[in-house]
Amino acid sequence: MLIKAFLTLAIIYSPTISAQKATVSAQTEVAQWEQFAQSFTCKTSGNPFTDVELSAEFIHESTNDTLQICGFYDGNDTFRLRFMPTQQGKWRFITHSNIAEMNAKRGVLLCTKPKSDCHGMVIAAEDHAFRYADGTFYHPFGTTSYAWTHASAYRQEETYASLAASGFNKLRFCVFPNNSVNDEPSLYPFRLIRTETDSVGKRHYVWDYNSFNPAFFQHLERSISRLQSMQIEADLILFSPYDEGRWGFDRMPMEANMRYLKYVVSRLSSYRNIWWSMANEWDLVKKKTLQQWKDMSCYVSEQDPYHHLLSIHGGTATYIDYNLLYFTHVSVQDQGPLYNFEGAATVRNIFPKPIIFDEVCYEGDHESRWAQLTGQEMLQRIWTGLIGGTYVTHGECFCSEPNFYTGYAFLATGGQFKGTSASRIKFTRDIIESLPSPPRLADRSWDPATAAAGEGIYLIYFGDKTQREWAFSLPAKCDKWKRTAEGDRFKVDIIDTWNMTITPCDTIFEVQAAAAKRMVDKQKRSVLLPNKPYILLKISRIQGE
Amino acid sequence: MLIKAFLTLAIIYSPTISAQKATVSAQTEVAQWEQFAQSFTCKTSGNPFTDVELSAEFIHESTNDTLQICGFYDGNDTFRLRFMPTQQGKWRFITHSNIAEMNAKRGVLLCTKPKSDCHGMVIAAEDHAFRYADGTFYHPFGTTSYAWTHASAYRQEETYASLAASGFNKLRFCVFPNNSVNDEPSLYPFRLIRTETDSVGKRHYVWDYNSFNPAFFQHLERSISRLQSMQIEADLILFSPYDEGRWGFDRMPMEANMRYLKYVVSRLSSYRNIWWSMANEWDLVKKKTLQQWKDMSCYVSEQDPYHHLLSIHGGTATYIDYNLLYFTHVSVQDQGPLYNFEGAATVRNIFPKPIIFDEVCYEGDHESRWAQLTGQEMLQRIWTGLIGGTYVTHGECFCSEPNFYTGYAFLATGGQFKGTSASRIKFTRDIIESLPSPPRLADRSWDPATAAAGEGIYLIYFGDKTQREWAFSLPAKCDKWKRTAEGDRFKVDIIDTWNMTITPCDTIFEVQAAAAKRMVDKQKRSVLLPNKPYILLKISRIQGE
Repeated sequence: MLIKAFLTLAIIYSPTISAQKATVSAQTEVAQWEQFAQSFTCKTSGNPFTDVELSAEFIHESTNDTLQICGFYDGNDTFRLRFMPTQQGKWRFITHSNIAEMNAKRGVLLCTKPKSDCHGMVIAAEDHAFRYADGTFYHPFGTTSYAWTHASAYRQEETYASLAASGFNKLRFCVFPNNSVNDEPSLYPFRLIRTETDSVGKRHYVWDYNSFNPAFFQHLERSISRLQSMQIEADLILFSPYDEGRWGFDRMPMEANMRYLKYVVSRLSSYRNIWWSMANEWDLVKKKTLQQWKDMSCYVSEQDPYHHLLSIHGGTATYIDYNLLYFTHVSVQDQGPLYNFEGAATVRNIFPKPIIFDEVCYEGDHESRWAQLTGQEMLQRIWTGLIGGTYVTHGECFCSEPNFYTGYAFLATGGQFKGTSASRIKFTRDIIESLPSPPRLADRSWDPATAAAGEGIYLIYFGDKTQREWAFSLPAKCDKWKRTAEGDRFKVDIIDTWNMTITPCDTIFEVQAAAAKRMVDKQKRSVLLPNKPYILLKISRIQGE
Repeated sequence: MLIKAFLTLAIIYSPTISAQKATVSAQTEVAQWEQFAQSFTCKTSGNPFTDVELSAEFIHESTNDTLQICGFYDGNDTFRLRFMPTQQGKWRFITHSNIAEMNAKRGVLLCTKPKSDCHGMVIAAEDHAFRYADGTFYHPFGTTSYAWTHASAYRQEETYASLAASGFNKLRFCVFPNNSVNDEPSLYPFRLIRTETDSVGKRHYVWDYNSFNPAFFQHLERSISRLQSMQIEADLILFSPYDEGRWGFDRMPMEANMRYLKYVVSRLSSYRNIWWSMANEWDLVKKKTLQQWKDMSCYVSEQDPYHHLLSIHGGTATYIDYNLLYFTHVSVQDQGPLYNFEGAATVRNIFPKPIIFDEVCYEGDHESRWAQLTGQEMLQRIWTGLIGGTYVTHGECFCSEPNFYTGYAFLATGGQFKGTSASRIKFTRDIIESLPSPPRLADRSWDPATAAAGEGIYLIYFGDKTQREWAFSLPAKCDKWKRTAEGDRFKVDIIDTWNMTITPCDTIFEVQAAAAKRMVDKQKRSVLLPNKPYILLKISRIQGE
């Protein structure tokens, strides 16, 4: 079977270091959380996707932590192994293969400290929070563009430019093309054997599910890598119902599904910004059972040596058992809990994991009711989720051709933002990132509208209600932090979340206890408000006096 | 060890047939869902609670269904086996014991059709519903009285009278006494070895956890049996934090906990109206871990041959993983989801099981904020839960001595209802029982305020909002039932849930499609409302025209 094999060693796909192609050396240096790659050129006689086994163990010299990495065939007689070092220090590796020339190859790499802008991969941390590996909080401010990687090169550049100018730090998109929006994509994930046209004129694609198309995945990797360089997490949707049988990627046999998952995880898990979204609207995929979804989710979790974030997203108000261990966080489509603060908090109370409402309707002008939010409503849902201790993903769907889900909406193929909420995301994110801790209700189930975001820090958001004043009153409870006590003094910032202004309030408030575990201003004073909607108060205890 | 044993056969504790004591006969008749009992008089030399094993297999002659029943020691040299036949027809049984005289005893009973007022035990059915075994919907309208069985005999009679005059069909109460309210109870569950007084004057009880007090459990059984005769489900709380170390039942060793659970299940599982509530406020019980709660819940579920309803209730907004198979339904303390319709619906969307909010604060005049609801607020929370497809338990806490959680509140020791919501429960229940199906949101996450309750049946509840008219508008979607279509005609009942009146509206409405999947009256007419709070509309499609 083996005809010829030789060995090269390369660090690839990391744009800033792609020129550093190295031959075998005693010790290769790779920064923590970047990618180390080992490639083999090897001509085989069978099917290199299915007949060749290639893996490696990477063992950290001082901790003995061991990661099992799967390799993959990348076309052109090239097999690759990729590894993202999770700890600094020396790693040794040894390969395993049923091809002698790739078997029992040993090497060493030295993992150096991360690059200055790298915080590591994002993990689900304590208390419903996300954190980067270095401990920094990560607050997801995502948007969605299902098929942007399948759009024209020009449009993809437009998408990058839009994202670069925005505050988004997560992008949710599909591996597979989207039947509603795509003309024939230029790249397919599998080798096309032939197309057939049936008696009613419908085209059928016959795929070789045993042969992946390396060019398809190389393009996907370039997209993920470029998002990584922009500090944007790639929330990659592995299956979706938007094929509807056109190409058939929504109804592959389970054997093909599992092989696809193994190939994707082998190729992509070494990208630190990858998240696995098993599906969008999983319950609308007609050909898979709930048990198959669970099996596939478990498989991806086990196959991924880094255990990247993994969730699954259903249709409106469809929840799966997110307590299952392989789901690291909750990713749902449900606007209902965002009508009120308490709804988001209830979902948070139920699942001991970070919560993202990844679809809560879209800002847009589409004829469907799910894409008719104003920018104000979109931003209000994001803030409602934040106050309740959860995160809400943005999305917009504007159509240049009326009444048709065209390729022009950001939701479908990216491009430029046309709505009014996207430009408020950076301001929103800056406020949240300035807090000592992610917000959550200060006194859950008792005060649905007041969040705590660290010791002595409260947030109150008024949504679309306008008022001229707010009588100073806080719950004594401040979630897990020290309770507010008699005599505590507070300053207030009045934040207009829509117009993006922050106005300090002149008054310093000093509190005393009132009924029902509330703390009110001793002089019963109020905060004067601008009588506009979308006002947020940030109330901070004055320290050290 | 064995001194003397003889055999009697009796049907006990079913009030209407308690006179039918029978000796061994070829065939005993027992109505389905009633209790068959087998007793043995047997003097043993060891500890009859721990040293004697007694069980029986009951095998249905035609289906071969087999139930494994555990016996128990009831004092006075008497051991008992109890069995509730779940199917009509002939059952054979055989006993197993380490005491020869109780071993390998065989018998036969004929299970006849249920008594006329008996629907069987309540089970968690499809689509978040409870049903009796005969298929009839069971809608829980419960109230709570933690320690009523430990109150004076006079007060217990008062409690029965109050319940008989009310519409409640579930009572939630604790096995153990309640430190906040009980003087020394007249009966203890275990044999008291001695009391000790420590150096600071605190009394300590030393129990023999290997010796149950049969009189305690006989009294508990009489209470459960009498509730059963009143068609009231006994939602029995097995552990609670309200001991606070006074008697120590909240901090028994795990071995004692498990023996207690086995004894309780062996005694009580043959009562068709028993529900197992593993705990009230489980997370406030300081001496048990989450894993122990799960282990104990699993144990009770496995030990109970009938698999009675089983759940566990935490402190405010504390949810456990109710997806675990041994939890048949969700029983939580959380008022937060009842502030809005969508909150209750969200909990329902998350768990594929019936949902009961078993504590949402109490109607009362207590100084604590959890017992200060008006009757109107209590009833509003019940209706809010119903519209969202869930159930809400009533409770009241009125104190004759101000600022103290006294024995006079119904919540603590029963007695008379002093609030204003209890008297509205029967009316509420009658409305719900008149519907073809339990309500749930008609178009979940899109219309938070409109419920569907069967084909062409909608409910709209306005809560404390008052208005003079309501423009006729429904979602086309009617949950799982046929969508409302152009030309459908509807009649409307205007229901004042507080004043308990039902007023038919004169107008017949005929609908046409409007934006966002709504159906509105063709002539844009409104339902005129009485401008009062707590109004419910029942909107019914007119059939067959």
